[in-house]
Amino acid sequence: MIVLGIDPGSRRCGFGVVERDGSRLRALEAGVLEPGDGPLADRLAFLLQALGQVIARHRADAVSVESAFFGLSARSALVLGQARGVALAAAARAGLPVFEYAPTEVKRAFTGSGRAEKAQMIRTARALLGVEAALADAADALAVAVCHLARRVPAPAAARRREAEARAALRPAVRRFGGAR
Amino acid sequence: MIVLGIDPGSRRCGFGVVERDGSRLRALEAGVLEPGDGPLADRLAFLLQALGQVIARHRADAVSVESAFFGLSARSALVLGQARGVALAAAARAGLPVFEYAPTEVKRAFTGSGRAEKAQMIRTARALLGVEAALADAADALAVAVCHLARRVPAPAAARRREAEARAALRPAVRRFGGAR
Repeated sequence: MIVLGIDPGSRRCGFGVVERDGSRLRALEAGVLEPGDGPLADRLAFLLQALGQVIARHRADAVSVESAFFGLSARSALVLGQARGVALAAAARAGLPVFEYAPTEVKRAFTGSGRAEKAQMIRTARALLGVEAALADAADALAVAVCHLARRVPAPAAARRREAEARAALRPAVRRFGGAR
Repeated sequence: MIVLGIDPGSRRCGFGVVERDGSRLRALEAGVLEPGDGPLADRLAFLLQALGQVIARHRADAVSVESAFFGLSARSALVLGQARGVALAAAARAGLPVFEYAPTEVKRAFTGSGRAEKAQMIRTARALLGVEAALADAADALAVAVCHLARRVPAPAAARRREAEARAALRPAVRRFGGAR
């Protein structure tokens, strides 16, 4: 099963494509789409096209996004909503089901902690998937893809053990950076 | 010049296509797109496709939408933003420029009053364009299209006089319904 995780934004939109192949999680592609400084409508049309290309390139089976956005101002919610609407439309247009997960659920599934900070998300992307997601948006997108795979596709015991080991190896770094555990 | 006005919504999306032909404003089509009760992503993909069809059917030159949304909760702003993002992407994907106008500006350009209520918007659609926009969403969409035409294409004197007469004829009805003047 191949899942595209999206962290929507009209200036920076993170994406991460993750495959569960037997007991392994494997990142196929991750990055940040940057539509540039043009008019909002042009940036949204760019995202629509680019996300459609990512879906087609990897023959994704499903799309996963974060669900709730508490603590946003109305203005920020509107801005986020615009990019989010385009991401959802890109998925449905390609016939893919969309799954939504709360931010804390995504962080817990990815790092083991529902309060993980950006640095920890990036380190987990490296440890779990071997991806240098130097950009936090890409790590967040990988995380929401992994969250769906963890929820929908029960991991074999070997994969669960490997993931636990990868997380355990991160602990000292987590403390050094003051991230939540 | 042909302008598509959109009043975005993921359950009800108003649209109105207005042409300025010499000194006349003419409604080519108006209505409400209703994507049904399916998943949000499917409703947004439906809107994307349906708005693309409206744009192609009338060979619209521009798209006009309301700009600012004060007084919304963050949740409402997110919901609105999702439909709005899809509307903007549909326009830009077809190569059309998008223009935005504040709600009070739209009401003033359409009815003469920046505080017009729904009933007055519907009556103005009838008086100015001959459209029975029984649905307020369609009237709002026609209004934002007319606002763009009024702003961007100076109306010849004859059209301005006709519009003033149409508005004057509405006054008694406006008073009866308690709408702002």
